[in-house]
Amino acid sequence: MNDVTFRCDCPISSALDLLGDKWTLVIIKQMLLENRRTFKDFLEADEGIATNILSTRLKWLESLDLITKEKLPDNKKVNIYRLTEKGLSSTPIIIELAIWSDKNLRQLHPILQESNAMIHTDKQGLIDHLITNYRKQNLE
Amino acid sequence: MNDVTFRCDCPISSALDLLGDKWTLVIIKQMLLENRRTFKDFLEADEGIATNILSTRLKWLESLDLITKEKLPDNKKVNIYRLTEKGLSSTPIIIELAIWSDKNLRQLHPILQESNAMIHTDKQGLIDHLITNYRKQNLE
Repeated sequence: MNDVTFRCDCPISSALDLLGDKWTLVIIKQMLLENRRTFKDFLEADEGIATNILSTRLKWLESLDLITKEKLPDNKKVNIYRLTEKGLSSTPIIIELAIWSDKNLRQLHPILQESNAMIHTDKQGLIDHLITNYRKQNLE
Repeated sequence: MNDVTFRCDCPISSALDLLGDKWTLVIIKQMLLENRRTFKDFLEADEGIATNILSTRLKWLESLDLITKEKLPDNKKVNIYRLTEKGLSSTPIIIELAIWSDKNLRQLHPILQESNAMIHTDKQGLIDHLITNYRKQNLE
């Protein structure tokens, strides 16, 4: 992990020193739920991130070991970004943001609507399912 | 709620339009776990927030109906800030940040160490306990 300045010893505030901004968790969400994995994939997402901000945030995520960057064997020009286990372990935070939003802002993420019942009856099961599914599609 | 510009329709990104910054969830954490409720309480916290940033963030939290501001009946000079039910409903996000930090960064928040077993064996029980406890101390 690169040198991060933590503002104090509180572990929650320290987590927010890493994840507490407008983009870091959004990019993780795009990878986890929308299966985005190339620079172009992220640029095309609804959030409309600017190219320079995306570059900076991907470097930030990589420096924190939340994602890795690799070339495809058959196309050396395209970088593929993948969540690490550390990145995947933020899944429960993302699910709780989705639930908070569902309660206070707007309806569930389309991907999570498919498992609407599950998010309310078996949250841990949904989290495990998303992580297992991501590993299967990307890490094996 | 004041006019917030949401970057897109994704509910998770929308939640992060409101909560995704360095301070919003930290101030909620200070209220929920450390029982801070005055401007001075927040200034004195370990995070060392600057006066002008604190003013801006408290106005932001109030405009989103996450906190309320009131005068004490016996001291009209001091504002008391309290979490609303909408603010309290972010408790699971804060607990998941604590767990992520425990796993990836540093040990649990001192307040949560007391309930260390509970956070691993009965997370929902801990969340309910924190919310009930906050209501009892601040809202009744």
